[in-house]
Amino acid sequence: MSAPKTLDDLETPCVLIDIDRATANLVRAQEYADKHGKQLRPHIKTHKLPYWAKKQVEAGAVGITCQKIGEAEVMADAGIRDIFLPYNIIGKQKLARLLALHGRITLTVTADSRETIQGLSETFTDPSHKLNVLVECDTGMGRCGVQDAEQALALAKVITAAPGLSFGGLMTYPAAGKAAEANVWLKRARDLLAESGIACERISSGGTPDMWHAGESDVVTEYRPGTYLYLDRSQVAAGVGTNDDCALTVLATVVSKPTATRAILDSGSKALTSDTLGMTGFGEIVGVPDALVIGLSEEHGTVALGEQGSLAIGDRVRILPNHACVVTNLFDEVHLVSGNEVIETVPVAARGRVT
Amino acid sequence: MSAPKTLDDLETPCVLIDIDRATANLVRAQEYADKHGKQLRPHIKTHKLPYWAKKQVEAGAVGITCQKIGEAEVMADAGIRDIFLPYNIIGKQKLARLLALHGRITLTVTADSRETIQGLSETFTDPSHKLNVLVECDTGMGRCGVQDAEQALALAKVITAAPGLSFGGLMTYPAAGKAAEANVWLKRARDLLAESGIACERISSGGTPDMWHAGESDVVTEYRPGTYLYLDRSQVAAGVGTNDDCALTVLATVVSKPTATRAILDSGSKALTSDTLGMTGFGEIVGVPDALVIGLSEEHGTVALGEQGSLAIGDRVRILPNHACVVTNLFDEVHLVSGNEVIETVPVAARGRVT
Repeated sequence: MSAPKTLDDLETPCVLIDIDRATANLVRAQEYADKHGKQLRPHIKTHKLPYWAKKQVEAGAVGITCQKIGEAEVMADAGIRDIFLPYNIIGKQKLARLLALHGRITLTVTADSRETIQGLSETFTDPSHKLNVLVECDTGMGRCGVQDAEQALALAKVITAAPGLSFGGLMTYPAAGKAAEANVWLKRARDLLAESGIACERISSGGTPDMWHAGESDVVTEYRPGTYLYLDRSQVAAGVGTNDDCALTVLATVVSKPTATRAILDSGSKALTSDTLGMTGFGEIVGVPDALVIGLSEEHGTVALGEQGSLAIGDRVRILPNHACVVTNLFDEVHLVSGNEVIETVPVAARGRVT
Repeated sequence: MSAPKTLDDLETPCVLIDIDRATANLVRAQEYADKHGKQLRPHIKTHKLPYWAKKQVEAGAVGITCQKIGEAEVMADAGIRDIFLPYNIIGKQKLARLLALHGRITLTVTADSRETIQGLSETFTDPSHKLNVLVECDTGMGRCGVQDAEQALALAKVITAAPGLSFGGLMTYPAAGKAAEANVWLKRARDLLAESGIACERISSGGTPDMWHAGESDVVTEYRPGTYLYLDRSQVAAGVGTNDDCALTVLATVVSKPTATRAILDSGSKALTSDTLGMTGFGEIVGVPDALVIGLSEEHGTVALGEQGSLAIGDRVRILPNHACVVTNLFDEVHLVSGNEVIETVPVAARGRVT
């Protein structure tokens, strides 16, 4: 039997997922949801792996959330049976794929316009197997969503009138730190629906930054955190966890040290992305507190070193990136590790599923 | 025979490459290089396709440039015979792959340290089949590279002393707009090498922003533009071409219009990246001058519409992104189009070759 594979056996750059930390994050979130009587429906955008989706459901998640049909197809193929697609599905080809998916799993989508509902209602026509549709609400994020409770009510009525659709409730992605405002918005819409005799069974919210406050809402029934599984530098900055809770790092090699205070890594924007999420720099070097990735080109990461930042050419370092979700979209595979040991290398099955 | 496939047949988001424009850009750059007696060695980081690499060589390029061994392996498999890897190759596994590649094609690499040269010299030991090594020079970019001409000379001597290596010359990636300063730097290094009796056959520079000035240099022998083939919004801003020269666009669908002046596209940072390159916004909408992509989340692009920006739900638009090279790294395939017709859909063979 060969010796176990370790981090030293891996070529850089590559993505390491600390199984122990991710598992702890998974369990902690499920326990919190259970304790507060919320249904957890993790967003797979962070990991993109059937491996974790199955573990999330096994731990008690009611199902998963995907953003693209292609991601949902991958997860359905892997055996996930309840998927929420909080997206306006537009266009004949996508609607045909959505209909096929509806035949295989319990599926829910969102709509924020009559145009989206019209496409859905023309495609889904079977009253005995209705598609569940939630109305997306813009509670402050400024992205998709109806702008007020009256619009939500109007769309709920359009959905209810369609023979092949059923109105399932409300969905929002609140602006970070604005969960309380979102709660007021959603409560008003729920009450308005109730006045019209329309039940609002499900009110779905999301976002890792505010996840530890999700239990405080008296209207939200379901929560869709994504990044909570791996966490990242931006979530630590938001107070969701500590560096020691972060499960995803990028293993990199120092390939150049042109000056005493500048090191160059083999990990550029094609490994870390240019996402700053309001932060300074593009990642920290684990265990080297005065080393910050201050610049990226596609294949180079420029590290500013302090006086103690004694990185040398050939050193291998672990980078804690600003944003975990976009990093997993850049790699065909990730390594599941425990300590220094590589437990398993898995393809990022839902990577690049753009449609 | 079936009707030709058109843009209407494609699901969004997807990447369109206008063959006619890319071909014109390819020819124009080669003609310029020929006229000024420079060797052209296009960087494949922009297209990542054997399709264009072959056309670049057929048009007169001396070879191609890749940034990672994995990219070079793909291009060697496709029949490209002369590849420059301007990168410090570090680590046993990478050196073994580099040695294998050296057995198949004409290969050149760079080094900016004794550590890199040591690894190369321990791997490449055959005096009858030497590896060609250029010294990377930091002429103002602040990335990799020796800091002055004296250091360049010192490394050239170390390379020359290694039995299996040959000193091939100097390489730089100059800071944008600093080609003149780079020229002074390189000239001094070349003269210093000459004083020590070391010939400097090849001096390689790069960068699309300054490519139309490459002919003015009296030291540069080779030029490595990448983005010139597709161009993008940032290159237009730098004056390299016009919007009508840009060959790469992202085809997207308007999936939501929550307010009169806000439209949401199905193309977020996973289609366009967060690269701003100093620009405002993340892309323009072709033919809709007052529509700008002002915000991105992973799967949503937020468009600010002016009074004339009358986009409607379901509309399909073409986005001119800030940075073409990183977009092609996000898609498994691109569509080569001519006008409204899809000529061919090709896999992005060198996408995601991170090592």
